[in-house]
Amino acid sequence: MRADRLVSMSQTPDSAVRTYIEQHRAAFLDDLTAWLRIPSVSAQPDHAPDVRRSADWLAARLKETGFPTAEVWQTPGAPAVFAEWPSGDPEAPTVLVYGHHDVQPAAREDGWDSDPFEPVVRGNRLYARGAADDKGQVFFHTLGVRAHLAATGRTTPAVNLKLLVEGEEESGSPHFRALVEEHAGRLAADAVIVSDTGMWSEDTPTVCTGMRGLAECEIRLYGPDQDIHSGSFGGAVPNPATAAARLVAALHDEHARVAIPGFYDGIVELTDRERELFAELPFDETRWLDTAKSRATHGEAGYTTLERIWARPTAEVNGIGGGYQGPGSKTIIPSSATVKLSFRMVAGQDPDHLEKAVRAWTGTQVPAGIRHEIRFGAATRPCLTPLDHPALQSVVRAMGRAFEKSVRFTREGGSGPAADLQEVLGAPVLFLGISVPSDGWHAPNEKVELDLLLKGVETSAYLWGDLAEHWRPTP
Amino acid sequence: MRADRLVSMSQTPDSAVRTYIEQHRAAFLDDLTAWLRIPSVSAQPDHAPDVRRSADWLAARLKETGFPTAEVWQTPGAPAVFAEWPSGDPEAPTVLVYGHHDVQPAAREDGWDSDPFEPVVRGNRLYARGAADDKGQVFFHTLGVRAHLAATGRTTPAVNLKLLVEGEEESGSPHFRALVEEHAGRLAADAVIVSDTGMWSEDTPTVCTGMRGLAECEIRLYGPDQDIHSGSFGGAVPNPATAAARLVAALHDEHARVAIPGFYDGIVELTDRERELFAELPFDETRWLDTAKSRATHGEAGYTTLERIWARPTAEVNGIGGGYQGPGSKTIIPSSATVKLSFRMVAGQDPDHLEKAVRAWTGTQVPAGIRHEIRFGAATRPCLTPLDHPALQSVVRAMGRAFEKSVRFTREGGSGPAADLQEVLGAPVLFLGISVPSDGWHAPNEKVELDLLLKGVETSAYLWGDLAEHWRPTP
Repeated sequence: MRADRLVSMSQTPDSAVRTYIEQHRAAFLDDLTAWLRIPSVSAQPDHAPDVRRSADWLAARLKETGFPTAEVWQTPGAPAVFAEWPSGDPEAPTVLVYGHHDVQPAAREDGWDSDPFEPVVRGNRLYARGAADDKGQVFFHTLGVRAHLAATGRTTPAVNLKLLVEGEEESGSPHFRALVEEHAGRLAADAVIVSDTGMWSEDTPTVCTGMRGLAECEIRLYGPDQDIHSGSFGGAVPNPATAAARLVAALHDEHARVAIPGFYDGIVELTDRERELFAELPFDETRWLDTAKSRATHGEAGYTTLERIWARPTAEVNGIGGGYQGPGSKTIIPSSATVKLSFRMVAGQDPDHLEKAVRAWTGTQVPAGIRHEIRFGAATRPCLTPLDHPALQSVVRAMGRAFEKSVRFTREGGSGPAADLQEVLGAPVLFLGISVPSDGWHAPNEKVELDLLLKGVETSAYLWGDLAEHWRPTP
Repeated sequence: MRADRLVSMSQTPDSAVRTYIEQHRAAFLDDLTAWLRIPSVSAQPDHAPDVRRSADWLAARLKETGFPTAEVWQTPGAPAVFAEWPSGDPEAPTVLVYGHHDVQPAAREDGWDSDPFEPVVRGNRLYARGAADDKGQVFFHTLGVRAHLAATGRTTPAVNLKLLVEGEEESGSPHFRALVEEHAGRLAADAVIVSDTGMWSEDTPTVCTGMRGLAECEIRLYGPDQDIHSGSFGGAVPNPATAAARLVAALHDEHARVAIPGFYDGIVELTDRERELFAELPFDETRWLDTAKSRATHGEAGYTTLERIWARPTAEVNGIGGGYQGPGSKTIIPSSATVKLSFRMVAGQDPDHLEKAVRAWTGTQVPAGIRHEIRFGAATRPCLTPLDHPALQSVVRAMGRAFEKSVRFTREGGSGPAADLQEVLGAPVLFLGISVPSDGWHAPNEKVELDLLLKGVETSAYLWGDLAEHWRPTP
């Protein structure tokens, strides 16, 4: 079976669904705008009250949507939101939708054309931090389930619908696994639908079949006990900024392969068939570079750009700092330097093994006279979805009806805690996302395309009926 | 002649000088404290009014000291102070004292135990930014010349005394050479005495015979037009923080030699005799490391620590920054990164040649897809003093009388615009400094030892009479 040929064009859109969405579009966008105004930045401690406010807001909104249960779940960090709307049909599948309500840091001075937390529509786009990642994509399910009910005349969804919207995804989900384990009974599902990914492009709807994992660490390098004069001491003591630079420089070999011994241990290599599927996508490197705001591709030798971002692990420096960074100059040897690294993992890589490898390697790289500390955050595992799962076919059909186009397959270079859900709940993980690469995740001027957002609503409206109709999971 | 055996112990201190200094010590320290309160940070544009205020303060104070002429000299940057006190003797030597009234940036949160611009005496030390570098060492000449007059009964100094105190030394003296050229007539001197260096230790008075030069540059590396998501794009485009790190890492080879082609062109190598003189100093590496606040020595293979800091050129990274440096993490590929480098030059190195070499080398290091810009500041040339100059012998004798000890010879790892004075005025440059390595130049908790500061006053008091007595420069 060729998973990428599953879409039947006999799946036609439903005018009742479209009419309902059109009638409620304005109120839906007003509500989303209100939510986007809450700066729920989980990585910045001073925004903790905002993350809490975001959770409260969402729980209240889900109750208004009709979910009989909508609760804020505390964690040792930021709170998550759980909601549940039973079908009433004992044989209906149970589906858990996953998303997150926290957002990346953002400040006007980073290069935003407008306040990142004052949403604004320009053209057919809604600009705000979180518009695409991930509030917009969580929120389309609220209007989606109402459209599903309105079009089918039901008073409950055709599936047992659960939502879990976490508050620490942008901080590496440090408490997510414990939360899922604690509430595993209430979260139990036959499938997990993750709405925190994207699709190929405005014109090419796709379903994502895998995500990379993520491990992050901060390495601090300490040299002199204080900044010292580069004239009096320069050339005779080790400089921690030099040590930091040499560490980062040593991350990759001359083929841009990660040079940390053991880094590639156990990884699932791409099959020839997967490489063919990637190669079939209408990839235009010039346009991709435009989306990446970059001037050249660069990466591991022997792999295409899509293979590099979807199926190969990486080591990137997300931040480096040491010494004087103000205006003018300061002739010092700095006292310390810091490197923030992140590693994208692919299926087969183990975060604990990776952490050990990075720690061991760093120890061999740091010169005498420089002390170092490494702090790892919680890791997110990689995951891959089986291409032939019946629930995946439902997602593809629902998306095909909404977009009126064939649906192709991609993977996602980004990371999410989907793998924890798969592992703890024992349920397959599927991806339903409508964001496009130009949406600017984690970047200034993040936006969502309003047309695609409403296609997301529509896909959600079709999905629950399709799942209930085509899938009777064996208990 | 062995220059290091010049000191005759028959030179004895003068009780009239010592009495005068003791009587005026308190007022002298009060005045210095008032000057140190002015945060004359030349590298930070918002402190420009303070640098101006510092110049005005000093000119007024020099007039009170008795200098018939004391003027503030404007430059396109920060102002300098010039003062002149003729001897009246047509055959007396003319001496120009050089120092600077600007200071390095300093902020309490850098690790100061007290406000850097609120001077405080703890023990026998005066703590403040500029206490040693360089206000304290400029200021000892004011009480020095008064003590000289009081002890000799003169109403004018025994030499034609000039002072030039610049306001941009900590910013690389960008307008100093032009200033000296503009006023070359009024600055004309038979010798230049630079009071902006240090001596070996509290117990070992020394005269410095050379300084390293300084060239500084900032290299900016630009990657994506904005920060981009490290998941969506990581592993497939060049990262400017990685490029910055690789650039810094490539600065040195495995022998810690600077790897920039042409860097060592033309340098004056150490002679065996100079290496012997260095080796005779009571150098204790453990104590030196303590002063350097460092845990290990590290530098160019084949040279001792003293040779590395006094007589070998260096490349140091003073600051590096790129990407996210706030709390927590941010999974981005940064849009840009910046490296601040400084190069210490030794005699024979040419700043223009160095700049060309750095620019050419950087061009070969930066990868495709990364754009770069290099900005060089004004350079300071290296200089060396002839060991057998008669004026140097006067400095050694004056210092020997004040300290009642043999005076040895050092060089200085730091840099100053002395070479410009030597070049433009055609006068030899001598060094008279009383700062010690623990004074923390450019670092938090900069201080000056009060006992040594007063020995500086005393040396200054003896020097003018000794010069007039032993030296009749041929016109």
